[in-house]
Amino acid sequence: MRDTTAPAAPVVPTRGRLRPLGLDEVRITGGFWGERQDVNGTATLHHIGSRLESEGWLPNFDLAAAGTLPEGRRGREFSDSEVYKYLEALAWEIGRTDAAADTALEQRFREVVARVAAAQEPDGYVNTRFGRPGQGDRWSELEWGHELYCLGHLFQAAVARHRTRPDADDGLIEVARRAAELVCHEFGADGRDAICGHAEVEVGLAELGRVLGDQRFIDQAALFVERHGRGSLAEIEWGQEYFQDDVPVRDAEALRGHAVRANYLSSGATDVAVELADDGLLDALRGQWDRTVERRTYVTGGQGSHHQDEAFGDDWELPSDRAYSETCAGIGSIMFSWRLLLATGEPRHADLIERTLFNVVATSPAPDGRSFYYANTLHQRVPGVEADPEGTSKRASSSLRAPWFEVSCCPPNVARTFASLAAYVATADAEGVQLHQYAPSSVRTTLVDGRVVAFDVETGYPVDGGIRVTIVEDTEFALTLRVPSWASGAAVRLRTGDGLIEHAADPGTVEVRRAFRAGDVVELMLPLAPRLTTPDPRVDAVRGSVVVERGPEVLALESIDFGADIVDAVVAGDPVENDGSVRLPVRNRTSGEVTDAVLVPYHDWAQRGPSTMRVWIPTA
Amino acid sequence: MRDTTAPAAPVVPTRGRLRPLGLDEVRITGGFWGERQDVNGTATLHHIGSRLESEGWLPNFDLAAAGTLPEGRRGREFSDSEVYKYLEALAWEIGRTDAAADTALEQRFREVVARVAAAQEPDGYVNTRFGRPGQGDRWSELEWGHELYCLGHLFQAAVARHRTRPDADDGLIEVARRAAELVCHEFGADGRDAICGHAEVEVGLAELGRVLGDQRFIDQAALFVERHGRGSLAEIEWGQEYFQDDVPVRDAEALRGHAVRANYLSSGATDVAVELADDGLLDALRGQWDRTVERRTYVTGGQGSHHQDEAFGDDWELPSDRAYSETCAGIGSIMFSWRLLLATGEPRHADLIERTLFNVVATSPAPDGRSFYYANTLHQRVPGVEADPEGTSKRASSSLRAPWFEVSCCPPNVARTFASLAAYVATADAEGVQLHQYAPSSVRTTLVDGRVVAFDVETGYPVDGGIRVTIVEDTEFALTLRVPSWASGAAVRLRTGDGLIEHAADPGTVEVRRAFRAGDVVELMLPLAPRLTTPDPRVDAVRGSVVVERGPEVLALESIDFGADIVDAVVAGDPVENDGSVRLPVRNRTSGEVTDAVLVPYHDWAQRGPSTMRVWIPTA
Repeated sequence: MRDTTAPAAPVVPTRGRLRPLGLDEVRITGGFWGERQDVNGTATLHHIGSRLESEGWLPNFDLAAAGTLPEGRRGREFSDSEVYKYLEALAWEIGRTDAAADTALEQRFREVVARVAAAQEPDGYVNTRFGRPGQGDRWSELEWGHELYCLGHLFQAAVARHRTRPDADDGLIEVARRAAELVCHEFGADGRDAICGHAEVEVGLAELGRVLGDQRFIDQAALFVERHGRGSLAEIEWGQEYFQDDVPVRDAEALRGHAVRANYLSSGATDVAVELADDGLLDALRGQWDRTVERRTYVTGGQGSHHQDEAFGDDWELPSDRAYSETCAGIGSIMFSWRLLLATGEPRHADLIERTLFNVVATSPAPDGRSFYYANTLHQRVPGVEADPEGTSKRASSSLRAPWFEVSCCPPNVARTFASLAAYVATADAEGVQLHQYAPSSVRTTLVDGRVVAFDVETGYPVDGGIRVTIVEDTEFALTLRVPSWASGAAVRLRTGDGLIEHAADPGTVEVRRAFRAGDVVELMLPLAPRLTTPDPRVDAVRGSVVVERGPEVLALESIDFGADIVDAVVAGDPVENDGSVRLPVRNRTSGEVTDAVLVPYHDWAQRGPSTMRVWIPTA
Repeated sequence: MRDTTAPAAPVVPTRGRLRPLGLDEVRITGGFWGERQDVNGTATLHHIGSRLESEGWLPNFDLAAAGTLPEGRRGREFSDSEVYKYLEALAWEIGRTDAAADTALEQRFREVVARVAAAQEPDGYVNTRFGRPGQGDRWSELEWGHELYCLGHLFQAAVARHRTRPDADDGLIEVARRAAELVCHEFGADGRDAICGHAEVEVGLAELGRVLGDQRFIDQAALFVERHGRGSLAEIEWGQEYFQDDVPVRDAEALRGHAVRANYLSSGATDVAVELADDGLLDALRGQWDRTVERRTYVTGGQGSHHQDEAFGDDWELPSDRAYSETCAGIGSIMFSWRLLLATGEPRHADLIERTLFNVVATSPAPDGRSFYYANTLHQRVPGVEADPEGTSKRASSSLRAPWFEVSCCPPNVARTFASLAAYVATADAEGVQLHQYAPSSVRTTLVDGRVVAFDVETGYPVDGGIRVTIVEDTEFALTLRVPSWASGAAVRLRTGDGLIEHAADPGTVEVRRAFRAGDVVELMLPLAPRLTTPDPRVDAVRGSVVVERGPEVLALESIDFGADIVDAVVAGDPVENDGSVRLPVRNRTSGEVTDAVLVPYHDWAQRGPSTMRVWIPTA
């Protein structure tokens, strides 16, 4: 059994193939993700904190503490959860930057915790939307009330804080513990035989159980997982699959229904399967992941084909033009994949995480970190409109990135993911360290037998395909590098005092096991030439089209680069890379003219004003 | 100016290129549509009447009369409208069958009218959902309240009754007149500057104004039309275009937003343009029709690409697998097209009516007339489930046809359309008669100069392509026959005592002008060989696929005929017709096996139990 309090990481299972490394063991030191972490820390967190105040979602807690609710309450029924995700993001950011107690970040964190704690009822209940005279009764609207969902996010925030600042006396972990005990009391085996309409409490309870060493919370998470699929939630227009209450988790074939709910539930179910050593449940989840990735996932890693219910479609139902691909569903997919990666060690889970990070999560925020995509279409037919910088947008509006949404789950979800991103870079096992994601970074950890592993990673990835690992301390260990599934022709090179060895590295993983000396260098060379990808013939929506990919990035054609409406674009040749930009010969169906159009990484689209855009481009 | 009270038809403009003929002038005597009219009259009307009782939507009027509302009220805010559409359907059916006063049909009609009349307030207001203590105030929820929408259907019912039984003393026309006067008082030029969130009152007021010769009602319809597009309705998640309140009617480029609302508004706007001789408005509507048919209409004639808001998509956004294609939107499109046909005489409007009748409206009801499709997908990936015959279904559920819906607009809309269908078959002008739709029928009318035109139509259409018109009375007149746009190679043949003349008839119309003698025969021969249709290259969703059409019918491939899941179907040859069935060589992508699969008319799909189905079939 591992010490699950120790690594400063979001997920610390007691068992599994790989051991996570915390923010104290892995630091991202620059590059593509380092820049985004900086913007997140300097701009996004401030932006979110400011909006939570001005929208009234944080002041709701003050009203609760003052006993004046429901009068003056603002926001949707789940607005508390955004405060908790914000707290979680602050906690990771404090941990990531090792912020001192007198910094504004730490003071802000403590202020928000104090406001939340003041709103907690004596019995542990905390929610600004239910339970008071003039409000709905506690737990009376399980389909749409989101009470347990909000608590799940509270638990994740408390876990983040406890793992990054185990000795902090801010009281957040106690707020969480008391709320979790109430949940166990109300919803335990002798309590309400019920679930929340939005999964999340499962993953929160499991991790809180791990961090507090309290099996009751893990058992409660298991109860919630098992209760899904029994139809206890009311039928709604979109069916009980919307809530994953149609089929028991262990009997399902694929993720279905609301894509965020589905991924959060699968994440919690994976935690439960690992903690309870329930291999049957774990196998079911692995099968669901496989089928979902094969048949219900966009080339960007995005999930969710329906606007109506923000839901997965049927197998092969992946329209570009109505792709919902909610940012939060992408984050949920990363949560699920990461848990399976820790449990199984299989690199395809890290492949999907990379695809989703670069093409969904990185697409959401604007470069200034102050506006976001909620949904991530793969085909924009009509130029979007500039969002009002002071306004609040509809979630899937056909706009440029917007500063805030009526349902604003995505901005704080991006913030907590970026702040904790180093935790997804590397893992350890008894033999050594596995590098899953490539970014300039430093890794310092101690293996279970006491060997100290220390190395630095330098890379210009994903612009450049070379990843250079320099050993910092003499240690014998196995360094395992992921070779992405698209990276045919990759090679690995070892430079030591003894000379240079180079060999091919097939997609999957490549291991270099050696008594390393400080200064030894392991280089992985990933071929990044732009490539044309054809769709599975069963995906009707993009038949007769191709997508250009380069390394982990999906590229997009914008009207501004084509010089005409992209409705007329037809591929007229192979993509060519020159001077750092990828160009594709594109014929205008109407004029017949062929343009060498620059393609942009999909995550960079719509940054030069309104445009039309497509990821899949017809070939005839 | 024409007598707009006289023809027993839903739409009787005072001017326009063509004059409608009423149910007393045109009778459908059998065949494809005659069978459907019979089922409608014998089964569907009873089914709807029974459900309106058991669901409480008709009893709501009794509660209103008893003064006990809101207690016990059932159904959605627009449930009154279904009662009015039912009344309209009964009125047409009574007219169509020339039912005597002592028939159950006529007695039922009078009973329902009496119950509605009893619920009318002294000032003319009638609605079971608003205006009483404990209900919302009158006109307080214009976005979603549907009060004016319901009244529009009341007006259409009263018009149907007055045109089919002008001397009836049931009082419905007075109920409508008093309600319309209230609407003019409340929403006139000096009243509320507002519109209803669901267009319909415009078309109802215009026709009521025609039938009563009351210009105030037409002017009020014009006011409502002009007020659209000024943003007086609140912003909702789907934008003000949902209500067509984003752009003034005369400035819009295409139909947009909710597809039923858009078509109903366009129909009312056409009525207004014709009555007020507003050529600018009429031209705008014609342009919108053209663009909508080119870019926003399915091959079935279906309209509406989005489930979320039951709305049109962008240009070329026509996914098969999430086609909404609501039955009521098809009926709305027929309403709009019919008004443009009367105004302009252009046969393409009749072409679309035919396409939509055969492939949307005829698809909705099951052969027994007791269950219906609300939405009409063009691609079913997962077998649907049998609907509970006693239950109430979600509107766009992935089921077989269902007996009733929570929002049950479609069944009574189909019923009123079928009952009045003869009114869409033929028109007259000063020179003669135009046949627009082909069905076994008899036509007896008098031209404006007193000439009596009488002929019978015999045809097995659409199974058979021969349409045989036999002149019944000696008259000199011009008989104009529509040659559908798909009917290249058609021919027309005239058989008289003088011999036989045959010549080619190009798509459009063909006119035979002659001093006809009784017994003369005009035959139109439409080529019905199955044909492969390729999509516009700008429609992404069906790129690389073809559809098989035969005459006016779109054909579909069902899994039961392919012998495997249609996800694996690839066209492997040309369709061939043999012994009355069309077969298409279809290769199984997985097994490689080629099957000569029977294709069924799309309107007949899902009649042999759950199946998967596609209309567009990949070619590679």
